[in-house]
This record gives sequence, C-alpha cells and structure tokens, in this order.
Amino acid sequence: MKKRDVYLDNMPLEEAKKLFFEDLQEAGILKSREPEILDVRKALGRVTAEPVFAKISSPHYHAAAMDGIAVAAKDTFGADDSNPVRLKEGIHFKYVDTGDPLPPGCDTVIMIEEVHPVGDGEVEIIKSYSPWDNVRGIGEDIVATELIVPENHRLRPQDLGAILAGGHVQVAVRKKPIVAIIPTGTELVSPGTVLKPGDIIEYNSAMLAGFVEEWGGQALVMEKVEDDYEKIKQKIQEALEKADAVIINAGSSAGSEDYTSSCIAELGKLLVHGVAIRPGKPVMLGRIGEKPVMGIPGYPVSAVLTMNLFVKPLIYLMQGIPEPEPEKINAVMSRRVVSSIGTEEFLRVKLGRIGERVCASPLPRGAGVIMSMVRADGIARIPALKEGLEAGEQVEVELLRPGYEIENTVVIIGSHDITLDLLANEVKKYYPELNISSAHVGSMGGIMALKRGECHMAGIHLLDPDTGEYNVPYIKRYLLEKGVVLVNLIYRQQGIMVPKGNPKAIKSIEDLRRPDVLFINRQRGAGTRLLLDLKLKQLGISPDEIRGYDREEYTHMAVAAAVAGGSADAGLGILAAANALNLDFIPISPEEYDLVIPEEFYHLDSVKKMLQVINTDEFKQKVEALGGYDTRDTGKVTIVPRGRFH
Amino acid sequence: MKKRDVYLDNMPLEEAKKLFFEDLQEAGILKSREPEILDVRKALGRVTAEPVFAKISSPHYHAAAMDGIAVAAKDTFGADDSNPVRLKEGIHFKYVDTGDPLPPGCDTVIMIEEVHPVGDGEVEIIKSYSPWDNVRGIGEDIVATELIVPENHRLRPQDLGAILAGGHVQVAVRKKPIVAIIPTGTELVSPGTVLKPGDIIEYNSAMLAGFVEEWGGQALVMEKVEDDYEKIKQKIQEALEKADAVIINAGSSAGSEDYTSSCIAELGKLLVHGVAIRPGKPVMLGRIGEKPVMGIPGYPVSAVLTMNLFVKPLIYLMQGIPEPEPEKINAVMSRRVVSSIGTEEFLRVKLGRIGERVCASPLPRGAGVIMSMVRADGIARIPALKEGLEAGEQVEVELLRPGYEIENTVVIIGSHDITLDLLANEVKKYYPELNISSAHVGSMGGIMALKRGECHMAGIHLLDPDTGEYNVPYIKRYLLEKGVVLVNLIYRQQGIMVPKGNPKAIKSIEDLRRPDVLFINRQRGAGTRLLLDLKLKQLGISPDEIRGYDREEYTHMAVAAAVAGGSADAGLGILAAANALNLDFIPISPEEYDLVIPEEFYHLDSVKKMLQVINTDEFKQKVEALGGYDTRDTGKVTIVPRGRFH
Repeated sequence: MKKRDVYLDNMPLEEAKKLFFEDLQEAGILKSREPEILDVRKALGRVTAEPVFAKISSPHYHAAAMDGIAVAAKDTFGADDSNPVRLKEGIHFKYVDTGDPLPPGCDTVIMIEEVHPVGDGEVEIIKSYSPWDNVRGIGEDIVATELIVPENHRLRPQDLGAILAGGHVQVAVRKKPIVAIIPTGTELVSPGTVLKPGDIIEYNSAMLAGFVEEWGGQALVMEKVEDDYEKIKQKIQEALEKADAVIINAGSSAGSEDYTSSCIAELGKLLVHGVAIRPGKPVMLGRIGEKPVMGIPGYPVSAVLTMNLFVKPLIYLMQGIPEPEPEKINAVMSRRVVSSIGTEEFLRVKLGRIGERVCASPLPRGAGVIMSMVRADGIARIPALKEGLEAGEQVEVELLRPGYEIENTVVIIGSHDITLDLLANEVKKYYPELNISSAHVGSMGGIMALKRGECHMAGIHLLDPDTGEYNVPYIKRYLLEKGVVLVNLIYRQQGIMVPKGNPKAIKSIEDLRRPDVLFINRQRGAGTRLLLDLKLKQLGISPDEIRGYDREEYTHMAVAAAVAGGSADAGLGILAAANALNLDFIPISPEEYDLVIPEEFYHLDSVKKMLQVINTDEFKQKVEALGGYDTRDTGKVTIVPRGRFH
Repeated sequence: MKKRDVYLDNMPLEEAKKLFFEDLQEAGILKSREPEILDVRKALGRVTAEPVFAKISSPHYHAAAMDGIAVAAKDTFGADDSNPVRLKEGIHFKYVDTGDPLPPGCDTVIMIEEVHPVGDGEVEIIKSYSPWDNVRGIGEDIVATELIVPENHRLRPQDLGAILAGGHVQVAVRKKPIVAIIPTGTELVSPGTVLKPGDIIEYNSAMLAGFVEEWGGQALVMEKVEDDYEKIKQKIQEALEKADAVIINAGSSAGSEDYTSSCIAELGKLLVHGVAIRPGKPVMLGRIGEKPVMGIPGYPVSAVLTMNLFVKPLIYLMQGIPEPEPEKINAVMSRRVVSSIGTEEFLRVKLGRIGERVCASPLPRGAGVIMSMVRADGIARIPALKEGLEAGEQVEVELLRPGYEIENTVVIIGSHDITLDLLANEVKKYYPELNISSAHVGSMGGIMALKRGECHMAGIHLLDPDTGEYNVPYIKRYLLEKGVVLVNLIYRQQGIMVPKGNPKAIKSIEDLRRPDVLFINRQRGAGTRLLLDLKLKQLGISPDEIRGYDREEYTHMAVAAAVAGGSADAGLGILAAANALNLDFIPISPEEYDLVIPEEFYHLDSVKKMLQVINTDEFKQKVEALGGYDTRDTGKVTIVPRGRFH
C-alpha cells in the first residue's frame, strides 16, 4: 500500500520555523514539564526546573577565619607597642583553629602570629582589633532564603557546590527531552555488514543521536524500518509511546519520503513539507497529538543541517534554555559561488587567516558529502534573494570550531596527496594547538590560489614537458611577483593502474597502443596528463594510437574507479589511488611533489612548526611505510627569489 | 603523628606551572597512553588515539543520484527538441531509483521527469547528457585510505557519521584520565547531615568532580578522611592504585595542609607548595611515581581557581588535546580595587553593557565565598606587579559565560531585596535569553553607581527625614543631570528583630529605651538608620537613651546575626532577614523600594521586558506570598524629568 504525496512545498525558512514553533506553543508542548528530582551531585549540566533558595546560611555560625585566639574586640582597644594589653585564657580568650565556632562573647580572632604568650595562661597583644576581624560571619557566603540559582539555569560545578552549601541534597531539574530516531529505507544495512552494490550503511542515526545528546536531549534510536507504509506507521506509533519527539530519517530510495509524509498526515498534522533551503529541502515538520514529529532527509548533510535548524531549537525550548548563539566571523570568499534564487543555501567553507584577512573557501556542496561537514570550519548562508557570492565578497560565517583554532591553521591548497593527511596528523601530535587544512583543486588550482592570497602554501607536481623539470618552471611562469620557497614533500610513484591480476598483461606505456586495451585519461593540464604526454613523446608514440586517450577524468580516484568498474582497462595514476580500489599498479616514473611557500608565510611560527615536523624521521618513516613514496629529499628547501627571472 | 611542614613558598604562577608540567613531561606521563577501543556510536565527545583512515569508499559503487533511467551518455549525444533520441529498455537503458547501482555500461542517469515513454519499452530524450550526470561516483564522499579524522581529535556527531561511512564499527580513543579526589578534614560532614557549630558541609568534592568531568576526565570521589597523617597517607596510596592523578582537597582546619604536603613529600616529591596567587596560595603540586598528585586548598574559591590553573591543563594534556581558550572581553572597572604587590589576584567580576562600554564590578574577594563564583560573569587578573586596578581602568576579563549573555543583561545596583532574586527568576522564565544581574551596595551606593554609569538602574529605599518622603528627594539631590523614571518594586515591612519567642517582650520603638535592652544599629546613611532616626524624632526619643545605638552593622543580615548570636537583644531590619535567621519580628513601618532608571535605559528592549514581568499578576502574587511585602503600587511609574528642580 504505497501512498504518494505529490505536494512538496518550497516554504521560506523563517515561515516554516514560525509555523512549526507557533503550533507547538499553542499546543502547550513547550510549557514546563514535570521535573526530575536528582541528587545534587548527579545534576551537572542539567537545567533547573525551579529556583533554588538557600535553606541554611553558610557559614551557619560565626567561624574563625584564622588559627589564633578568639576575643572580644573591645578588650583590645588601646593596645599598642608601648601599652600591650594582657589577656587571660578562659576569661578573655580561647584558642581557636580556622573553622572553629566563635565562643560566646567573642567577636574577633587574633592570628596566632600576633599573640605573645607571657606564661600563666596569659598572652600579650600589641595592637587593637576591630569587631569581626578574621571572622567569617553567619551568612558571609550564603544567607538562608537567598536565591542561589534561578529556574532555567544550566548547572555548572560551582553551582552544585553552592546548592549543597545552601543545605540541599536534591535539586529539581528538567527531564531530558527524549527524542526517538527512526531510520527508514530498504537499502540500509548496519555498520559492519559486508556490502553489496546498492547497500547503504545506516550511519545517520548515530549522527542524529549524537546531536540530540550534545543539545541536552536523550536519543532513542529505534530499529530501522524498510520502505513500507504500514511498518513505518507502526514504528512511529511505537516511538510516540516512548519519546517526547519523533524524528523519521528518510531513506534515499524512491518514495520513502512520501510514506513518511503520508504517515504524519494520517496520524496527526503535517505542517510543513519542503523548505526553500539547500541542502535539506524535503524536510517535514508536523505534530501528532502532543508530540512534535519531524521528517529529516536521508542525505547526511541535509540531515545535519535540518537537525540544526529545527530539532536543535526544539530541544533547547523543551529544556527551557535559549539555544546557544554560534560564534561568527567575517571572511572573504576565495571563489565565486553561484546559487539559485529563491533558495537559502548553507555553504560549508574552510577558513584560514591569510595575512590580514580570513579567507573562506567553499567545500563540495553535494548533500551526500558528509566529509564536507567533517572538514568544514564554518557555514556561510547565501540568502534566498542572492544569486550567489562573488570572489572577494565579504561573508559572515557561523563557526563550527572556535575562532582561535582558525587563527592557528596552516592552509594548503593544491593537488591532493595522502601524505598531506599524514602530515596533518603528525603536526597535531606534536602541536595539538596547530591545524593543517588542505583543499584539493589540482596543482594549477593551487598556484592560482596562492596568487590570489587564499592559502599559505600550494602542493604541486607540475612537469615541464620541454625540460622534464618539475615545478620551478611553473613558479617562474606564474609566481614571479612573489619570492617563494619550495619545500620538497615527497617523490611519488606514477604508474599504470590495471584491474587486480592484470588480466590484459600490461607491462609498459607501449602496451597502451594495443587494440584490446581501452585507456582512460586525465584532463588537459593535469600533472599526470603532462607526464603521459612526455613519456609518449620520448617513446615516439602518437596519442591517436591509444584507444580512449580522449576520455578524460578529473581525479586519480575517478580514473581508478573507471578501471575498477570495468569501463577501462588501464589508466595513469598514483599508487595510493590503485591501493584504495585494490588495483594492480605498474610503476612508470617518480614525480616530484613540492610545497610552494611565499616568503611572507615561510617565516610564520605555524609554518615553521609544520616544516619541523616534515623533517622528523618519524614522519619520513610513516610516509615510506605507505609504499610508492620516496623521502630522500623530504624537507629540502629551494629558494626562488622574487623577480629573479625578469 | 603530626608532621608540620614549615615551608610555604610564594612561587610566581608561571614558574610553578613550568616546574610541574616539565617534571611530568620528563617523567613521560603526558605521552600517549594505551587507547580504549569503542563502538563508534558510543564515542561522542571522546578524543581519537589514532588517525582514522577510510577502509572503504563512500559510495562504494557508482550510484544513481536521482530516480530515472541509467544510460550511456554517448547514446544521448545530439538529442534536442527537434531531434529526439529514442532509447530501448534493456538495450539502452534501465529504470533506476536514487541509490541504485549503475548497471554495467551506463555512466549517466536521466531524471524521470525528462524521460518521455513512447510505448513498446521505448522512451524519447530531447537533450544530450554528459557522462556522470546525476551519478554519485565511487568515493564521491569518502575515498578508501583517505584520512577521515586525525589523532587527537574530539569526535563530533558528523565525525561519527563519517567514520561509520568509512567502514569502521570501532574507533580507538584516549582513555579518560581518572582523577581521584580525597576530601580531608575532621570538621567535614556529608550533605544532608544535621549541622552543629563547627561542622562544614563537604561540597568541594562534588564541585571538583564536576570540573574533572567537564574537562573530559573521570572523577573518582574517595571517602573523606579525618586530619590524621597515617590515614591521609593510606588514602593517597589507595587512590594511586585506582587513578591516573590524585587530588587531596585540604580541610580548612589547622594543620591539615601540613599533613598533605608531608605525605606527598614522603611518598614521592613535592615540587611546589605555595604559589603567589590570590585566592589559592597554599596549592601543592607534586608527583608520586608516575602519577601527578596535587593538594588543592580547602576554601571553595581557592579550590575552583587552582583546579582551573593546574588540573584543567593536566586533564587536557592527558587527553592529547589543547585546553580550550576562554572567551575574553575588554571592560572598564567600576570601582577601585587594591591588591598586594607580588601576588597575582584573580578578581571575580559582574559584567554589563552600560551604553557604549562594558562595566566590570568586583564581587566579594573572600576565598570562602563560593557565591562569588556562582554570580561571576568573568575573572579579571591583576598581575603580581600591580597594586590594584583604578576605577575607570580598562581590564581584560576572561568570561565565565558567553559574551552574548553579557549583552543581554540588565544590571541593577543598590540595596538588596529578595524580590530582586524573585524578579531575576521570573524574567528568566518569560525570556530565557535575558539576564538580571544585581549587586548589593546599599541605596546610596546604587545612586552613585548610576551617576558613574555602571548600571542600568538602582534599587533604593531612601527616606528623607525632613519630609518623610521616600526616594524622590534623593533623586533631586543627586541625579539632577539625568532624566529618570522611578518604578515602584514593592513596599516592605521594616520592624524590630528579636530572638525567637521575644524573651524581653519588646513591642515598640519605645521599648528600646529600656535599660535591659541592648540594641544593634545600622551604619550612618543606611535607609534603615534614617527610618529609625525619623521614628525617634517623632517620638521625642534621644539616641543617647538607647543602649547600643552606636554599634553599627552594614547589612540587614549582620544585624539579624547579632540578634541570633545573642550579642544584641534587638535590631531594626526587614522581615526577610528575620525569617532567614528564624527571628521574631515586630512591624514598625512600611518602606518604599523603587527602581531608579535613567531615561536612556528605560527604553531599552531588555528593560521593557523586565518591567513587563514586574507588572504580571504572577510576579506580584509570588512577592505577596513571601510575607512582609505590599505590591499595591508595584510597577507604578513616576517620571522625574532632568533638571526640573534647577
């Protein structure tokens, strides 16, 4: 029984929020709920459901604040060096330790260091004291009946201390809102399952549960349900019995969204289905009885975003505390980004302080790319009425990590290599406060980013086909206006990737000419394409002789995937890509991969620390252990002064 | 067996930190420890002990990104409106749903909306498509072998998602450092115990445990130990077996510190005893075997401060992540604060944005006043080489709550009344984002704070002895240069406080003349003192006739405490103070308590919201329920224009 819901709205975000939260308000769902009574010592991080007034004062008696003698201040009046006053134990004073109650008739404590025993239980005092000197009076800290913490207050360690000091052993806190999460989708399999094509690992529920708990709720992950109207409906009803709010996480397969929306509409009311945001458009907001029910889209980034927009404020409202405001920063867009009019886009960006400004570089925008949320430093909103952002335009970015971390980040843009990941990891081990951020746009993209001042350094491997020399000719051509330093990261093996077992027995570049071999190439300008062209030239082979020379891919991985998928018999790439997809690899030539660092950044403290790590034996050993890498020149510095080649 | 350690150093803070952490570094204690292997779904908030590389790609197959038909892009080349291309199911295309694997030979998906069936299993296409249109290629999100998160990375919900997507079900995280906390002190009693004078509620351990857990450690609160050298030593040894670090929380009674320092020195080495900070001077830092051992002072504010200075960085270092940097703000000191040269003071301050500047008002500086940590918005450091801070001096304040909360705070300075606590609580219920901060410096103190621009309003009850009128005469005298609005908060009952049962049968002001009655007075200028003087004048009684008229206290509570402690038979004050110490109360006169609000602040959104709450029946009912209050004019507004009285 499949019900299709043809209606998918494109409601502006603010309108959707208003509709949803006003309905919950009217239904009385956001009003205070029954509190939970906890031992104060177990209440850290919880939110008070009632104001806490002190039951007793602290101290609850006049207490000595020093070790010494307790006296009546008036008995010391007039004492000085030449007129010492003599006091008798038991009559004028009593010895007290810090914390001891003041004996009756005493109002002052004299420090033991200022007391001069003269024998016979008598002491001399050579100055006069004021009442309450060195005494902690009743209620000095807390006065009985005083407010210790108000209602709707998130309890910190010092609050627990003060509440206990005020005579309480229990405290009334808000119950954690229980949020049920129902993963739906016939294609979903549990983590750890051996995968076949079409299987999707069900990981959204772990992520959504994590958010619910970070925001102060309690997550209840339900068993996953296949795409079946009746089963989904039944699971929603089960969840409603156990939870204060229900999330249905749509599968990505056809129709699963429609089941969810029809179920919500049948059991209660569907207020919103479709919001003008990207990613996250197919979100659903509704209510069944007294409980909010939300359909969260299946693509992971859509899921994260819609959770933040709708479920986060809900969980905070249910606890009675305001949603924390995100830290914001002004940044400058490194590239132009085109966006659709009428849709508010939430663009994930990497950030870095490059000289005077903070640069924001957009990350992949696909709703399915969860790594864009892992890598992102922040989110830039592109309003619905804007067609996009221009390069150089100033944008406000909501931070996903603290601002000071952005300040401590070295930004590398250019060609990707896995040794950069390794480097990022090693740097974090030596200098936990330092971050390496790398964006992958190819070698020439890296040089252009450096020219535009978007990064501290570029990772490049550019072969000059005329000289066979790597990198320096390109710096001379494109970076003349800057003095730069070239630091060798590694040499890496380029080779021919072929299916496991090498079924067509390919041994060299020459074999690519064979009529039974279908090749897959890289795009024009790619370092790997330049290498192939040089090799072909050296061997006197014409590109026409190679079947598939014109089929272009943009990354090592895409070439490897074509070979792995059977749509090509061979492609040129690096060992790491072959290893990633379990391909065989025939080495052809080592390639020089360098970091290009403008002089102005070479002397930054953060860059120096990074280069120190590159020079450690530990880093080099780990690189060598990957296979396909040579570290003989790792860390080697070549200085290319500004304008030397004019 | 009591060992006294006479050595108490006054080591500069940075030197103490260096000594302690360098020793730990040398002893290898801060090196990576054995990791803990967790189910990824249980690893939220934990810190990775190893980098996590993807085991599989995501997607792990070429997947349809839309519902539609899968084709080879080349079969669509040349198609347009006038030249549709006809494709046959099973030969040229296959129907696919989102997430389905691409069939062999296909590289493109055409959205179902763009497919025109023409019967016989054939469809027409009226545009041409590029390879990989609407396809999520292998590794589009995550490429096998790619770094997902580095070592020493605190796992967020999106990280859990990506790690699961990368084929992991488990992740290696750092073990939580276990920190044992040993409360010591014979005077300590557990929360909930019926108290006798000299008893101190043991609440520090709950507070210290809370900090340990907030910073990512696991707290192990040990049973409390009395001040006995052997018992303390034995408990330390027990703690060392179970924990990675040990904290001994000194009792405040004489000698307990000395036991701790001697125990550490005997069992291992005591590196630091006494740091030039206030509060927190008697802190101890040492090491026993492979484990850091710290003596944290007994006064609660000293404990909180030294935990933050020494234990917080330790716990972060043991997890391999940097200590988060506190948010900082520049503020202007509202009052002069004198501090000792040679000691770095950590001053707790309340903050509020008053017009253009953020004002910092010092809170009580006693090490025993835990409420100063509850009320504080931030901490201003007074460097060891400064003698203090001047009024108007700019200071950097480390925030204890987010900066935007400071911006949303209404600051009230003046005389204290418990209805202000009630108001703060009610405001938080209606407007969770709004805060009321009140500081208690007396009515005249409030007027002076208003003159100096340190608060948004002052709470005052000042009787003009000549006219018998409240508040307005003082505004005319002191606030002529501002136009102000006077809002009545409450009338409150002033009366004579006497011990429970009224043993001396005091019934009126006249009884204060009796020779068997010892009075306790308020300081000159206090509203209560003015009231007494007016009453005496009206009754024709001379102050000389009252025994104790010259004995002055500065707060209602101090007067109440003198009566409760037996050092006086009667004092004038408010019902709330009498109730707090369980005294009897003879009403004398109602007193008008108003809020004085300069016009410039009266129109602030936050102030308007606060005044709305004052006007609710709910607030008034709660005030009446306290007893001793009259709300007949609560919320009533009197406008006193600027310079009207020139």
